[in-house]
Amino acid sequence: MEQTTSIPRAERAMERLGLLARVGADGPDGGVTRPGLSTAEDDAHALVAGWCEEDGLAVSRDAVGNLYARPSGASAAGEIWSGSHLDTVPSGGRFDGALGIVVAIEAVAAIAGETPDAPVAVVAFRDEEGWRFGDGCFGSRALAGALESDGLARADAAGVTVAEALAALGLPGPPVDVALPAAYVETHIEQGPSLDTAGYALGDVAAIAGMAGFTVTFRGASGHAGTVPMADRRDAFAACADLAVRLRERALDVPGAVATIGDVAIERPAANVIPGVVRATVDVRAPSADGLDHLVAAVPAVAAEVAARNRCGVDAVRCWRDEPVSLSPRIRAAVRGAAGAAGVPIVEIASGGGHDAGVLAAAGVDAGMLFVRSLNGGVSHCPEELSGEADIAAAVAVLTGTLRALL
Amino acid sequence: MEQTTSIPRAERAMERLGLLARVGADGPDGGVTRPGLSTAEDDAHALVAGWCEEDGLAVSRDAVGNLYARPSGASAAGEIWSGSHLDTVPSGGRFDGALGIVVAIEAVAAIAGETPDAPVAVVAFRDEEGWRFGDGCFGSRALAGALESDGLARADAAGVTVAEALAALGLPGPPVDVALPAAYVETHIEQGPSLDTAGYALGDVAAIAGMAGFTVTFRGASGHAGTVPMADRRDAFAACADLAVRLRERALDVPGAVATIGDVAIERPAANVIPGVVRATVDVRAPSADGLDHLVAAVPAVAAEVAARNRCGVDAVRCWRDEPVSLSPRIRAAVRGAAGAAGVPIVEIASGGGHDAGVLAAAGVDAGMLFVRSLNGGVSHCPEELSGEADIAAAVAVLTGTLRALL
Repeated sequence: MEQTTSIPRAERAMERLGLLARVGADGPDGGVTRPGLSTAEDDAHALVAGWCEEDGLAVSRDAVGNLYARPSGASAAGEIWSGSHLDTVPSGGRFDGALGIVVAIEAVAAIAGETPDAPVAVVAFRDEEGWRFGDGCFGSRALAGALESDGLARADAAGVTVAEALAALGLPGPPVDVALPAAYVETHIEQGPSLDTAGYALGDVAAIAGMAGFTVTFRGASGHAGTVPMADRRDAFAACADLAVRLRERALDVPGAVATIGDVAIERPAANVIPGVVRATVDVRAPSADGLDHLVAAVPAVAAEVAARNRCGVDAVRCWRDEPVSLSPRIRAAVRGAAGAAGVPIVEIASGGGHDAGVLAAAGVDAGMLFVRSLNGGVSHCPEELSGEADIAAAVAVLTGTLRALL
Repeated sequence: MEQTTSIPRAERAMERLGLLARVGADGPDGGVTRPGLSTAEDDAHALVAGWCEEDGLAVSRDAVGNLYARPSGASAAGEIWSGSHLDTVPSGGRFDGALGIVVAIEAVAAIAGETPDAPVAVVAFRDEEGWRFGDGCFGSRALAGALESDGLARADAAGVTVAEALAALGLPGPPVDVALPAAYVETHIEQGPSLDTAGYALGDVAAIAGMAGFTVTFRGASGHAGTVPMADRRDAFAACADLAVRLRERALDVPGAVATIGDVAIERPAANVIPGVVRATVDVRAPSADGLDHLVAAVPAVAAEVAARNRCGVDAVRCWRDEPVSLSPRIRAAVRGAAGAAGVPIVEIASGGGHDAGVLAAAGVDAGMLFVRSLNGGVSHCPEELSGEADIAAAVAVLTGTLRALL
């Protein structure tokens, strides 16, 4: 039976975030590391499956390990799904992804308490973060039939491929034989300070930025740090530093755009050796398709320019690209209606982060997102990320109302 | 008995370089990895000890594992030493260090064949490259009583300290109870293209550049690559990139100076995470004391400037500093005389690399160096470094003549 207020549900959700944070806990600072398609992510799925079963939901998983939990036990056409993901970045926080799962359980369980055959489901997608294999939203892409052609062959830093990681978890891999839902609503921590700055607990997400990822490899010449004159060097790290400086300038040219070099590896690094080969990741994002086009063209152009300046060779390989997507007006209206009914002020917001909701929207599903205020200055992808229990209670109430309205 | 020409000796030396290259061989490209104070370095010492004993030399080692091989068996005041080191950089070549050892064996064995009680010795110093523990010339510094105060506490990337590495090799550690020699002559591959460009097999080293090493740590704020606007970032890698660009400019201001960032580590790197903490090594070198002062002052100043620009904190720690040293006019005259007698053209050259000869010179020993032409464009610290057998034969002849002249 549904509880009369959402407070006890929010308490349970908050407590479960703490329990999930123990799975893949990686140190005294509270960081959580659950790589996509790892045993830690699998353990988190098992924990969530148990909770869903306690609430009388029937749990199933598809060929890539995405989890579904339904009151009726059988999937039906026209289902309404809510969920998110359970993997994390290295030493991430406890809210990113997991919040959308625990809130969805509360909403779906509440609806199931009233309508035992309601066509709703909790869904937990695999490997949303994408850092392990270099591409995000693996589970939702697999569901949507939108994996890159080399998606299963990609390898992590230890040389394990996606196909091998799936096999190690006993998963057959794509194709995924599950019908797309009629609607998908994802709750997620904001990952930025906008809601907190504006004083809102919740945000109604209008659009998800376009984004693309590159791997840039500079090949110069290794050499002795003391014996090669500056003018004769072919320093691959010098080229990488120039790339960082110039891409920052290019990103500042595009309103709302960002560019990030998050991972840099010098081949055989040593303090007294000029770097010969350097690999760097480049992540660019922009709210508009034009802005994304501009940055996607800039990365190889700037890489070639700084490589020439440093007499290095260069490969700039685009690993993935997601177009900007507008979220469904129908879902947005349902979210705003539910917020109004619950007396929760809500504000329109854009997402700079990619989400499974973007993949489903691109596949034609009516998709929407509900952002929850991030405290601590909106820090994200780190142990300090934080959402408060009152805001989570508001999210449970608004998500429950939204799903009801969509049924 | 001495051989009548140096050619067979050079053949033996060349063959031994091939045998030494098998110790710590790390792949199909011919690279050699023998970290200082590792079992691989120790194995190379054992191999060299066996060769010295085959030539009738008596081998001993001191408290930090430096090897000595003497015809007389007993050390004496006023000895003349020749040698170098047997450790390598990661995936280094077969000539750097090892060449000075195999050539010294030929010269000392030749002299011992004539004068069985000559006060000469082959010496092999430990951990000259210094990348493992962050400081070079460990063995010669230990001999000279010139280790940094924290020398034994320094740890490698795996957390093993110098003291622990010594203990693992059965070495008691400093102090070293061996008298400094009257003279030290080190043969070394040039590690640059100057001799080859000028058409000389050998170089008479006039001076060794001054140099210093820093570790610079930037502390910004980790964050989501998509949700933190460029203007709000505290990106530690952006600061590191700015450091690289500005230090290059500073080095170009000082004639003959170089600056190198050889090792960069992003804490918890991920493609979609703004780097929060980045550690970089900085190596600066200059031929003059003034030039070195300028660069040593520039590193923390530039680091502070780029940290402020990127709203990061910074620590710039100087790990070591070696003043420029002029080599002994007496040894240089002996080298030039021996070259003249052997009919080998020789040219004055400066060393941009640090060497054990510099440590001994700073400790008051009459020290000199003989550089051997490096082919392949003078590449260094990589498997492609190369000296030819004819040049090595010339080095054996000139070193033998030099040691004789100094007796």
